[in-house]
Amino acid sequence: MAYELFYWPQIQGRGEFVRLALEEAGADYVDVARRDGGTELLMAALEVGEHPSFAPPFLKAGELTIGQVSTILLYLGEQHGLAPRTEPGRLWVQQLQLTIADLVTEAHDSHHPIASSLYYEDQKPEALRRAADFVETRIPKFLGYFARMLSNPEPRPYLTGERVTYADLSLFQVIEGLRYAFPNTMHQIETEYPVLGQLRDRVAARPNIAAYLASERRIPFNQGGIFRHYPELDQ
Amino acid sequence: MAYELFYWPQIQGRGEFVRLALEEAGADYVDVARRDGGTELLMAALEVGEHPSFAPPFLKAGELTIGQVSTILLYLGEQHGLAPRTEPGRLWVQQLQLTIADLVTEAHDSHHPIASSLYYEDQKPEALRRAADFVETRIPKFLGYFARMLSNPEPRPYLTGERVTYADLSLFQVIEGLRYAFPNTMHQIETEYPVLGQLRDRVAARPNIAAYLASERRIPFNQGGIFRHYPELDQ
Repeated sequence: MAYELFYWPQIQGRGEFVRLALEEAGADYVDVARRDGGTELLMAALEVGEHPSFAPPFLKAGELTIGQVSTILLYLGEQHGLAPRTEPGRLWVQQLQLTIADLVTEAHDSHHPIASSLYYEDQKPEALRRAADFVETRIPKFLGYFARMLSNPEPRPYLTGERVTYADLSLFQVIEGLRYAFPNTMHQIETEYPVLGQLRDRVAARPNIAAYLASERRIPFNQGGIFRHYPELDQ
Repeated sequence: MAYELFYWPQIQGRGEFVRLALEEAGADYVDVARRDGGTELLMAALEVGEHPSFAPPFLKAGELTIGQVSTILLYLGEQHGLAPRTEPGRLWVQQLQLTIADLVTEAHDSHHPIASSLYYEDQKPEALRRAADFVETRIPKFLGYFARMLSNPEPRPYLTGERVTYADLSLFQVIEGLRYAFPNTMHQIETEYPVLGQLRDRVAARPNIAAYLASERRIPFNQGGIFRHYPELDQ
């Protein structure tokens, strides 16, 4: 049985956190909306079934339909060994994932502080103010926290120790995205916390992830996604 | 063993979603920061341990420390029968909770669209714009979704059927909060979707919840929390 992933076909967006877990697991999956007529299938699937999602992404796994990135990863983590088996470990990885999700929302809102339905150009003055706080206060606070978690109490390869989890894959994606969107800010922060770049490199070098990143399945960062590069916001 | 809840003592905030689950379960718990010197205990606890939280609330359960509201509820749901036992049911309730959490973040940002660290008065023009979209577009979209989930395919007492889950308790809290913050908007929406007020009343009438709401443990809504009543934002 192949998984079916439903997400917007033009961007990495929130779907990318699911794609990375599926790719690391070597799972058989179809990125439904990237096929011909796929966006219509996506829109139609939002309206049906017992457990419809509020928004994409969502994943069909046989009879199951699961929405919300962190819930999808909770499921995939258990199915594919991308989370610890113990209850404390399982909860800890989910807690880390939700903190990453909070950072992702703030990254989005740095360029869309008023409404997702408006263009960036229609909320640029507000974005300049919000991004200034994001860059000065929020990115350092979040990434300082994750740097601490990667070396608490001692440096370790991954957030929970020797084994990769879905939270590591998501943290990789956030570091990549923030490098694309805020290169000046990230240069400073990564100088202070080299453990972040080391985690990024370690994930990128995993065979399944390296193959994915080199493939056409990896959509490049672009100005329609969550992480966007507007130089005026990266001061 | 009593649970220890760590959260800001002056507001309902995100801690309230945890309090409601603990109260419904009849669990023995201490609201740590509401004791003398409690805020200092809270701040100190953020800095120590193997699994420190990025921010309050967090819950100590014996040896376990769990942060992020939705992860705490995932745990409490399993411990106290506030979620289905089956995997599809367990994932579905967590998915609903994360959608509620997204709405809560947007409710907060309606009055703080630029930075949590600034006063409302310092971001009022931006709040007027963001709240206009929240009221016109986002609240109807979210609450329309939850109304649909409460009657999909047929009206049912709770989101998943006959039994209350932590997601129902959280949806109760969101409806209460939005009524406090946006009474005009909510009057219109609840006229359209009476199932929302019915769910709210059903939860409020549960014996443990009714006793809690009548007690001093329930902090009143106020202008320091997530749900704030600024009449100019409720047009």
